[in-house]
Amino acid sequence: MEFKASQIAELLQGEVVGDENTVVSGVSKIEEGQPQTIAFLANPKYEHYIYETKASIVLVNNTFEPSDKISATLIKVEDAYQAVASLLQMYDEMRPKPRGIEEPSFISKSAKLGEKIYIGAFAYIGSNVSIGNNVSIYPQVYIGDNVKIADNVTIYPGVKVYRDCKLGENVVIHAGSVIGADGFGFAPSNHKDYKKVPQIGNVVLEDNVEIGANTCIDRATMGSTIIRHGVKLDNLIQVAHNSEIGSNTVMAAQTGVAGSTKIGKDCMFGGQVGISGHLSVADGVKLAAQTGVASSIRKENEILQGTPAFNISDFRKSYVHFRKLHILANKIDELEKELKNLKS
Amino acid sequence: MEFKASQIAELLQGEVVGDENTVVSGVSKIEEGQPQTIAFLANPKYEHYIYETKASIVLVNNTFEPSDKISATLIKVEDAYQAVASLLQMYDEMRPKPRGIEEPSFISKSAKLGEKIYIGAFAYIGSNVSIGNNVSIYPQVYIGDNVKIADNVTIYPGVKVYRDCKLGENVVIHAGSVIGADGFGFAPSNHKDYKKVPQIGNVVLEDNVEIGANTCIDRATMGSTIIRHGVKLDNLIQVAHNSEIGSNTVMAAQTGVAGSTKIGKDCMFGGQVGISGHLSVADGVKLAAQTGVASSIRKENEILQGTPAFNISDFRKSYVHFRKLHILANKIDELEKELKNLKS
Amino acid sequence: MEFKASQIAELLQGEVVGDENTVVSGVSKIEEGQPQTIAFLANPKYEHYIYETKASIVLVNNTFEPSDKISATLIKVEDAYQAVASLLQMYDEMRPKPRGIEEPSFISKSAKLGEKIYIGAFAYIGSNVSIGNNVSIYPQVYIGDNVKIADNVTIYPGVKVYRDCKLGENVVIHAGSVIGADGFGFAPSNHKDYKKVPQIGNVVLEDNVEIGANTCIDRATMGSTIIRHGVKLDNLIQVAHNSEIGSNTVMAAQTGVAGSTKIGKDCMFGGQVGISGHLSVADGVKLAAQTGVASSIRKENEILQGTPAFNISDFRKSYVHFRKLHILANKIDELEKELKNLKS
Repeated sequence: MEFKASQIAELLQGEVVGDENTVVSGVSKIEEGQPQTIAFLANPKYEHYIYETKASIVLVNNTFEPSDKISATLIKVEDAYQAVASLLQMYDEMRPKPRGIEEPSFISKSAKLGEKIYIGAFAYIGSNVSIGNNVSIYPQVYIGDNVKIADNVTIYPGVKVYRDCKLGENVVIHAGSVIGADGFGFAPSNHKDYKKVPQIGNVVLEDNVEIGANTCIDRATMGSTIIRHGVKLDNLIQVAHNSEIGSNTVMAAQTGVAGSTKIGKDCMFGGQVGISGHLSVADGVKLAAQTGVASSIRKENEILQGTPAFNISDFRKSYVHFRKLHILANKIDELEKELKNLKS
Repeated sequence: MEFKASQIAELLQGEVVGDENTVVSGVSKIEEGQPQTIAFLANPKYEHYIYETKASIVLVNNTFEPSDKISATLIKVEDAYQAVASLLQMYDEMRPKPRGIEEPSFISKSAKLGEKIYIGAFAYIGSNVSIGNNVSIYPQVYIGDNVKIADNVTIYPGVKVYRDCKLGENVVIHAGSVIGADGFGFAPSNHKDYKKVPQIGNVVLEDNVEIGANTCIDRATMGSTIIRHGVKLDNLIQVAHNSEIGSNTVMAAQTGVAGSTKIGKDCMFGGQVGISGHLSVADGVKLAAQTGVASSIRKENEILQGTPAFNISDFRKSYVHFRKLHILANKIDELEKELKNLKS
Repeated sequence: MEFKASQIAELLQGEVVGDENTVVSGVSKIEEGQPQTIAFLANPKYEHYIYETKASIVLVNNTFEPSDKISATLIKVEDAYQAVASLLQMYDEMRPKPRGIEEPSFISKSAKLGEKIYIGAFAYIGSNVSIGNNVSIYPQVYIGDNVKIADNVTIYPGVKVYRDCKLGENVVIHAGSVIGADGFGFAPSNHKDYKKVPQIGNVVLEDNVEIGANTCIDRATMGSTIIRHGVKLDNLIQVAHNSEIGSNTVMAAQTGVAGSTKIGKDCMFGGQVGISGHLSVADGVKLAAQTGVASSIRKENEILQGTPAFNISDFRKSYVHFRKLHILANKIDELEKELKNLKS
């Protein structure tokens, strides 16, 4: 499929600088730009590429003023990064989506299926499952008994959703993630061994939640582990039983949240962050990658680093000195010697 | 199904305070207590909820003395937390368990199947597999050739068990875990590339082991990677080839144990702990979350923190000063100046 | 199957010391050596085992001179560790490999299949997939549309490969890994929520790449996430969108590489390492386990530790003092007091 610069400009409410009839059929990165593709320039750091790119069209910010000749046709928009997101969206939506029920699949007779759904081969749909409209369930997915799936949900191959869990509208779950496995609950017995505490709760994913690949969200002991509206979790994340993640919070890969912890809304956590159990974290808190949180964070919008975590600018001040700690230690030895000399 | 307070008290060997005929049909958390449910109070921190909960029955410790009016019927037991675990167990056991063999599934003719088993749809059972009685194998599970599975084992959807591995009685493995993939063994060759060292050993999970979701336990190069009796591993844990985890040791999520390391019994590791290869860790050792162990730990029951790890109270003493290290550094500068003044 | 010492010596170009007709039928570790098996001794630390092992044959280095009586027959080779790798290889190759197409499986009519392939039951092969010769696709694997798989590739049970990805010759992927899930790309909108940036790129695994179990490699936003020739990734690793890992780099389990980061060739990373996005790491860099890299590493072959990472010998010098930081702090207090006394 081909598009003219003028058509794209109209879609993005932008302005063409150059040949309105330039035609593209794909998308590329500016540093690898190919003829007949559209690229974009949002980060000024990459500006030098625009003078040599072979892309036929480049999306730029309204504010962009070239400092040299450019062979590509430009489309000026208010926000090039947002525009490219819209463009990728359109491109992605043109991709044909699977529909219908592939065989063999296993669908319980008591399951209720919405309209315009896709159920891939080797998918398993348990008893009393309810599936909304426009839902895509890819091959080899497992949906346990009594699970409720709202409209427009996409579940990629091999996801496992245990019994009783609830998925809100527009939820996306990537391959291999496990929703609703037993929380890690064991009561010590007399003989140093452990007795399992059955986990009879569930997991609730509210609307617009997106979950990456091979992430685990455990069911609550009682009640629900809750992932609020708009939360985005990356790959290989652990959310333990009875936790709650506030709306629009985003977490990078390999982060772990221990049991019964309540994370606020609009938080941003880097990768490999760990948060202990039974804590609360205020709204808007940011955590640097690999940070370890061992006590509740009460102050909204604070940024922290370190294990255990404290204010990031304090951490950085401390770390500057940690890096040359042997020099500090030598200075102290020197001072002790000098003082001894003075006294004698 | 409904139960009277008197019936529950009898089961738990407790005493009813209030109406013996109060009826419940479910379980709830005390802070979210609903009518016709039973809740519990074990942690005194939550006592205030008991005066306002809508739960019809609350389990409490014998020692509990209310300081205000309570509308719920109480059942006094010796240990409310243990009692609720027993109650959840009973509740859980009432849930109907799947039985029989669903189609389509793939079961090698040479496999031996026990009695009262469940094999879910799309499960794969390889050659010479032996499966005990009362075993549940959920949909989309893969059991490789020659695997031995003892009685009462539960394997949740999508678990993969490679050839030759052995699972003891009562083993539970949650969705997506991989037992017996190749250990990470590569010998450097002359040309800076690596030659694979085939991994011909296996994994042995002894009785009463429980493994969380998406956890990986690699097969030994030769011999066995061994998870001893009663070990409990959380989600997303890595156990490398030829390791051994001692009995009743518990590890929280995202912890990693490198190759040929031997962990003692009765250890407790927090989340995201890492342990290097070829080490040994004494019995009863506890590691704080995110701790990194780079050398063997010889002292039983020691508690450690930090990367590299050392005694936790020493770590805490050091960290107090790390948090204000720039103040220490300033003091040293100040001392140097003063000393210079004194000498001049 | 049985082998004589003389046959093994011939295969390995070694020399028999003892009975050339000693027969073995398996492989064991020297410390657990069983009769009729062959063991090896490469690490001098384990030498004492050779005097008591029950293994019938032991592979040793040419340079090995016993200090006591040995009952086993010895085979002397140039490099015992390499020899055992070769031996394990031969042993492994004798294991019968599955071939053919098991039913039920789902293979799109537009897929092109090579010769001597294995496709396990419940595997899913999408539209326009191309599969080379001698490829093994185990049960419950998902191969999305347009995926290209070269010769001699092995894909273990439950692996998911999203559409458009490319796998080079001899690639091995262990169970549960996810190749090509969406990169974690979301653009903040006006209302504190996030708009998904579609990820239309792919993942390219070049020849001889081996990927462990439950590892995730995300597809690029545009273009490719690239894993170069000979890279070995362990279990539970995260590689984010648009990253590139240089040839023959090896990473231990649970390591994470954030988006658009370029790692050099011949690097070695310990477990649980984290690397921030948009960085570059020079060739031959080594990172200690749990290291966190927050800025680019320009110096080839540097070894680093800590979060944020710096030179490992500097880190160690600093850490020595960190471990007794309260002593340093006390010394400073002491110095301040003494100086005060001196001045008064």
